[in-house]
Order: sequence, then structure tokens, then C-alpha cells
Amino acid sequence: MLVGKIVGEGEQPLVCTPLVAKTQETILAELNNILEKNPDMIEWRADYFEDITDLAKVVSVARQIVENKNGIPVIFTLRSKREGGYFVPNSPEEALHIIAAACNEGGVAYVDYELGNSPEQLRKLRQLIKGTNAKIIASFHDFTMTPDKETLLSKLGDAEKYGADVAKIAVMPNSLEDVLTVLAVTLEAQKIIGIPVITVAMGPIGVATRLLGGIFGSAVTFAVGHESSAPGQIPIEELKTVLTIVQKSMSGK
Amino acid sequence: MLVGKIVGEGEQPLVCTPLVAKTQETILAELNNILEKNPDMIEWRADYFEDITDLAKVVSVARQIVENKNGIPVIFTLRSKREGGYFVPNSPEEALHIIAAACNEGGVAYVDYELGNSPEQLRKLRQLIKGTNAKIIASFHDFTMTPDKETLLSKLGDAEKYGADVAKIAVMPNSLEDVLTVLAVTLEAQKIIGIPVITVAMGPIGVATRLLGGIFGSAVTFAVGHESSAPGQIPIEELKTVLTIVQKSMSGK
Repeated sequence: MLVGKIVGEGEQPLVCTPLVAKTQETILAELNNILEKNPDMIEWRADYFEDITDLAKVVSVARQIVENKNGIPVIFTLRSKREGGYFVPNSPEEALHIIAAACNEGGVAYVDYELGNSPEQLRKLRQLIKGTNAKIIASFHDFTMTPDKETLLSKLGDAEKYGADVAKIAVMPNSLEDVLTVLAVTLEAQKIIGIPVITVAMGPIGVATRLLGGIFGSAVTFAVGHESSAPGQIPIEELKTVLTIVQKSMSGK
Repeated sequence: MLVGKIVGEGEQPLVCTPLVAKTQETILAELNNILEKNPDMIEWRADYFEDITDLAKVVSVARQIVENKNGIPVIFTLRSKREGGYFVPNSPEEALHIIAAACNEGGVAYVDYELGNSPEQLRKLRQLIKGTNAKIIASFHDFTMTPDKETLLSKLGDAEKYGADVAKIAVMPNSLEDVLTVLAVTLEAQKIIGIPVITVAMGPIGVATRLLGGIFGSAVTFAVGHESSAPGQIPIEELKTVLTIVQKSMSGK
């Protein structure tokens, strides 16, 4: 099997494109479309999937995405309605079981799990997937504003403390000062957080973080492959063009 | 006569490319080369000119640059050796007279004048060019380090206080924190400085300011047309590609 790039290792940032289609057929069509654009990672936003409560179907689709011909690592993300996504769980345990199935039988490389869940739930998730190599990205989202620097650093710190493999924050900037806050947090995190971090300021104002966050230490940047999954994502072709220019310029060539 | 874009007005940043050739013939060849790349401004680094002490020749070359077929505004810059350039003046007044000739007879639209010169000299320059429309860019350079935020803001404030039309700082970052300092200064200046500002963090580390400084309020960004005049400048084609993507992304399209 091909081995993809790993978050926090090698040349960063990795470019990740979301899969947001609703049916098995359209998800696989979207996957083929996206593979042509050579992302480094794919995030399956499984909360968009209409059969998300059917474990066999989730596993089957996950496996087909994971076995993509490019060997690109897959992030499995099941964002609930409360967390800004589409999944409406019937019980607190339901999400954990779906995620565990995606890891244990679907073979996904990463799971995005909200920090808003309790540390106990995160430990339970770790327990449920302990026979796999799946890594946990513990994420904090705020779709309305940007908390201050200390709060954001403490969220990244929580992710590490609770045993995640990667820490992620995605916030909504209401000013360019907020954008600088996110970049400063990213830089500061390199000194005080022991796991790779992913940072995003969403929306049009936050575009600088998607383009240049990697310079400051963000390990992954999200770009539109076929359709966006969050405000402010730009097309992968354009993002890669900018990253190439930035990398060339910063290497002094 | 065509009227070019004006610093601090309309869509920013303006892209400025330097002319750094040494002879009249090679300067004009460089000019033609650069015009094909459609910069918004041209900076004639007159301190590179081998006949810089011959006023008639300076005026003649300035006029030929100013009368470029694209009507692009020209910045006249005579940076002394002490200021990081090549000009070695015989007397403190010599630079002022050359600059005045470039404005009065050469017709340049802007003059870059170091803040390190005394406020009296800046007033004298204003007096010498009072019959022209030439605007003064008062600039502060540090080729070794990045002063703190307060110092940089006070330099921009000095430029305004001493009567300049545009305030510029160009500093050398020794860390990504320094790059964030320059971006933060740029943003803060929008609130407290009453004239347009230009900010640059030089060198490979500072590339973010050349690409994204405009978002934070820098009115001009310098790019390589034919040859660079400062460390970290990137080719105009690449800079324009990034600016186009940034503007499109930030307009939410």
C-alpha cells in the first residue's frame, strides 16, 4: 500500500480537501474528481453522508475512500449539528461507535474529534480504536468569533493533555487583529505544544492563515477540491500555486 | 499624459519594481523590460547610476523614465552608502540638490528620503521642490534587525510629523515573531497614522509582508522586475499571481 504524508512531519503544510457529498455514489465521484488535484490529505465529512447511521455502509464507503489509488491519508470527521456540522446523534455513544467502526474496519488514518466532548469521551475513543494506527485530531471550533491568544493556546494545550495526536483550532476572525492572533498562537504553539497543530481563521478575512499559516507552523491547510466544507476555503489549485511561490521565496531562490 | 495609480488611494497594494542598472543605456533597457510586466510604480534607485553627480544626466534619465509609455509614476531614490545604498555624497547638501533636480526638472512623482536625515533637511527638501507635485516618502530602514512595535510606530509617526506624504519602514526580521510585529505595526498604523504607510520585512523570512502586507494596510509592495534592489523581493509575476488570488479569496468569490 502507498504511504501518504504524515501530519507534523516533512514539508508542511499538507493540503487537505474535504469530501462533502451525501451519497455513496456522489462521494466516490467527488473522490475521483479530487484525486486529480493531488491533495496531500482527504477529509471525509461523514456527517454529510445520508446513511451515516448504517455502520456497514459507513465502513464500506470509508474503505473505498481509504483505498484511493493515490494512497492519500483520510481524516474521518463526524461533526454534529451542535458542533457546526450535520450529524444529529441519538445518544452520546452513537458518534463514538461510528468513529470506531471507521477506524477499526474502515481503516482511516485520522479522526477529527471535538474538544467540546469530555476528556473521558476522548479516552473512550482512544480505547475503542487502540488496535488501529488511527491518530486523533482534537479540534476546537468557534464559528462566530476568535477567542484571545491565551484561550486558544489553552485549547491546543488541552488537546495535548487529553492525549490527542494533533491539536486543531478553527475560529472566525472579526478583524485583521484576530487573524494576527491566530498566526501568533500558531507560532507560540511551536514552543509550548508537543504535538503538531493545525490552525485556521475562517471566512474571507482569514484567508492569510490558509495561505501562510504553514510558515508559522500550521501542519495542515484546508482547500476546496470540489466543494468547500467551511467558509473561506479557496480552490486547491490556487492554494498550491501560492504555497509553491511562498516556499520558493522563503528558500531564497 | 497618462495618470498612474496613487499611493494610498484605490486598490492597494501597488506593485513597485526597482530600476537598478548603472548606465543610461542599461537603465532604459531595464525600463523597457520592466514595462512589459505592468508594475503600478517604478522606483529608480539613482544611487546605482554611475553619473549620479552629473545633474544634467540625472535629469535627462529621470525624464526618460518618467515619460514611460505606460504613464507609471516614478519614485526617485538616492540611498547613500550609510543608508544601505551606493551614493557617497561629497557634502550634506549634494543629495538634496540632486533630488531637487529630479523633481523640478526630471518630473518624478515621488522621492524616497531617509528619516535619518534631520527634520530640517526634510523641510529644506520640501522647500526645494515646492513648485512640483512630487510627494515625499520618508523612510526608515534597518538592514540588521526589527525594532519593537512602539519604535516602528514612532518612526511612522515621525514621518507624518515632519511633513512627509507617505511613511515607509523596511526592516530585517530575525524571526517570524518579527514578521508578525511588522504586520501588527502596519495594521495599527491605519488607526493612528494620517498618511499612507509602506511596510516591509526584508529577506526570505519576511516574504509574508511582501505578499500579504497589503491586506494589513501597506500601500506599496516591492517586487523584482529585472533585478532586485533589496533582499527577499520576489519576481513581479509571482507577486501579482498571489495578490490576485488573495484579492479574489478575500472578496469571498
